[in-house]
Amino acid sequence: MSDNEQFSRFRRKAVKVEDALESILSYIPKAKHEQLPLDQALGSTLSEDVKAPHPIPHFRRSGYDGYAVISQDLKDASKERPVYLKLVDDIPCGEVPGKKLESGQTARIMTGAMAPDESDSVIMLEATEQEERDDGTYVKFTKPIPSVKNITSIGEETSEGEVLLREGTTINPGAMAVLSSLGYVQVPVYKKPKIAVLSTGTELLEVDEPLEPGKIRNSNTYMLAGQIQANGGEPVLIGKFPDEVGPAKAKIQSLLEDPEIDVIVTTGGVSVGDYDIMTDIFLNWEGKTLFNKVQMRPGSVTTAGVFKDKLMFGLSGNPGACYVGFELFVKPAIERLSGREAGHVKKTAFLEQDYTKLNAFPRFVRGYFDEKDGQLWAHPVGLDMSSALLSMKDTNALIVIPPTKTGLKAGDQVDVIPV
Amino acid sequence: MSDNEQFSRFRRKAVKVEDALESILSYIPKAKHEQLPLDQALGSTLSEDVKAPHPIPHFRRSGYDGYAVISQDLKDASKERPVYLKLVDDIPCGEVPGKKLESGQTARIMTGAMAPDESDSVIMLEATEQEERDDGTYVKFTKPIPSVKNITSIGEETSEGEVLLREGTTINPGAMAVLSSLGYVQVPVYKKPKIAVLSTGTELLEVDEPLEPGKIRNSNTYMLAGQIQANGGEPVLIGKFPDEVGPAKAKIQSLLEDPEIDVIVTTGGVSVGDYDIMTDIFLNWEGKTLFNKVQMRPGSVTTAGVFKDKLMFGLSGNPGACYVGFELFVKPAIERLSGREAGHVKKTAFLEQDYTKLNAFPRFVRGYFDEKDGQLWAHPVGLDMSSALLSMKDTNALIVIPPTKTGLKAGDQVDVIPV
Repeated sequence: MSDNEQFSRFRRKAVKVEDALESILSYIPKAKHEQLPLDQALGSTLSEDVKAPHPIPHFRRSGYDGYAVISQDLKDASKERPVYLKLVDDIPCGEVPGKKLESGQTARIMTGAMAPDESDSVIMLEATEQEERDDGTYVKFTKPIPSVKNITSIGEETSEGEVLLREGTTINPGAMAVLSSLGYVQVPVYKKPKIAVLSTGTELLEVDEPLEPGKIRNSNTYMLAGQIQANGGEPVLIGKFPDEVGPAKAKIQSLLEDPEIDVIVTTGGVSVGDYDIMTDIFLNWEGKTLFNKVQMRPGSVTTAGVFKDKLMFGLSGNPGACYVGFELFVKPAIERLSGREAGHVKKTAFLEQDYTKLNAFPRFVRGYFDEKDGQLWAHPVGLDMSSALLSMKDTNALIVIPPTKTGLKAGDQVDVIPV
Repeated sequence: MSDNEQFSRFRRKAVKVEDALESILSYIPKAKHEQLPLDQALGSTLSEDVKAPHPIPHFRRSGYDGYAVISQDLKDASKERPVYLKLVDDIPCGEVPGKKLESGQTARIMTGAMAPDESDSVIMLEATEQEERDDGTYVKFTKPIPSVKNITSIGEETSEGEVLLREGTTINPGAMAVLSSLGYVQVPVYKKPKIAVLSTGTELLEVDEPLEPGKIRNSNTYMLAGQIQANGGEPVLIGKFPDEVGPAKAKIQSLLEDPEIDVIVTTGGVSVGDYDIMTDIFLNWEGKTLFNKVQMRPGSVTTAGVFKDKLMFGLSGNPGACYVGFELFVKPAIERLSGREAGHVKKTAFLEQDYTKLNAFPRFVRGYFDEKDGQLWAHPVGLDMSSALLSMKDTNALIVIPPTKTGLKAGDQVDVIPV
């Protein structure tokens, strides 16, 4: 029996969403690496741990604008008996102290500048006064200062060799600051996976074609392109194919063998109808079909398989079902391929209104969640008819409605999966 | 008195964060428009309302794979007395029905295909059986079906002229689906504002330079570049300038007059020290300084001004203060320039730990918030020393600590501003 004979067109065995996901993730190959210029690295994922090659700070750094002193000199200073130290140096940021500081002396120093080795503390400018005398400038101090005050010591923020950013970290602006301070002109990251997108359906028109009776414009391609980009993948738009097995199958075969393509996503043709060509292709291809039915609504006909180490997803042609199929299965695949944590990150929220639709399978309702008085509330959007194109634009989460014989009440806790 | 004489180097009047923000937003010019190809429009902001140029769907669309019927024909159908209709047509997706349907006839139809004008309902394939007879194929129906069932009528999702996406909407994958279904090959969007970034400080090294005593690498530039990109702006990296007024001032003047630049952001040099060149520039420029001190920690020296209709921000050179200054003031400016809603979107969260630091000004503590059992919890990150570069990489929000004489307790409600 070939791998795929267990799958039939009509008698499909529906697997659980969790099992479908696990099966997909188990086939994902190791991500590819590349070096990216720092200014293009935002949103990419580190492919190596980033260690501090030197302590931070790497010199004793003044935390204030003021005077570097030897604190011992000021131990008896008071308003009544101020201490005067002779001003011998002026240390701006970026320069090394020009003089060795001796007892009885002080140096003007800026925030962030390097403290003289002999000084142990910095006193803020505002707490001092300057006085001109014949033999030079003196600074008046009216109180003592503890030792090691207002100077950040070497390695106080980070010691040499410490891991500052872990492999798998998504690079945000804060991480860019860390990388630049460590001298990373090029950043080791996982390569963005390339996801081929192919739509099937004789009814599809190009976006720039005028409408015809019975035909609709190909909207899934651009929706998927957006979903892929939003999740750190690079869409490769292959276009649309009519409902004939031959041309689509030939194109898919060449994509399966193209080393530049990491994942193939198709939409349409996965149902049981006579013209559902993806169903035919998944029943007769050289790859291994993983599942062709999932216990979920919408998108129960979502199909996935693997050829060598390349995943192919057959998503529903129905826009709503296609959207949900992407979020539940293709997104985690992109995450894993990008070196990030992969899976469904669920949050708990309170349902804002009754949900009365009954179903035997879990339902992934498009909606949004927001915060009120510190609590999260989930709002279903629109009709959730799986064909309703319009509910997606207001969606920031899938609301998970478990199988229920009674429906859910407003205020019930539900899982939400942010998109 | 010139506009700027009210500002002095040392006696600065601290304005409230909200007033500073309002002042900035009042000077922001109308955003520029452009047309972007649909596949590059993700994350951009619509500059016009998008209306449906035709109803959706624009033809009567079958919701199932099955048979189109005239429901009247089946009104007496039952298991005991099935009704047989003659199969006269086969309508795949994308084609127009080939035959006029008459009473006693049915047509095979696919999900998404165009229903014959004469049919009013579709019966699912699974509920039927075919039978071959001498004069052709017949389909057996064993129950009645209501009129107008399983066919989506014209305009049921959207009527012609309905506004589907409002001006100011950020384009997400769902919006891309809507735009493509309406035929938008090019999308009218607000142009990404170009933000010039200029760092000051003699202590700054380029990212690829080896460390020297007293010097640090220029990390603010790349952090800001990341923040600008993450918020829909286009960074223009101008580089670093030593602490001398002349070269920086000349460069700034040329940027102020450059029509390609929408906003200028500088870091460093806004404090009261002798080498704080941005303080000098803001005291003596031809623009109007809006404020040079804000009631906040960190970043109280954050300065902003306007020259003609171009904003210039003088952020602190301290990485933490620079980060906060960007999020509170530059980000809303980018939002407004991009045509999006501008301001501080605050959520309420519960403080996860005591916060004991007392302050007279509101403090914007870097941290993160997450959800537990449907509630939001705020966690301060690291030391929140404004120089601590490392706390930013784990930050997803600024936690707002109001002026307090007693500190806050774990479980207290706080505002958080997501970044």
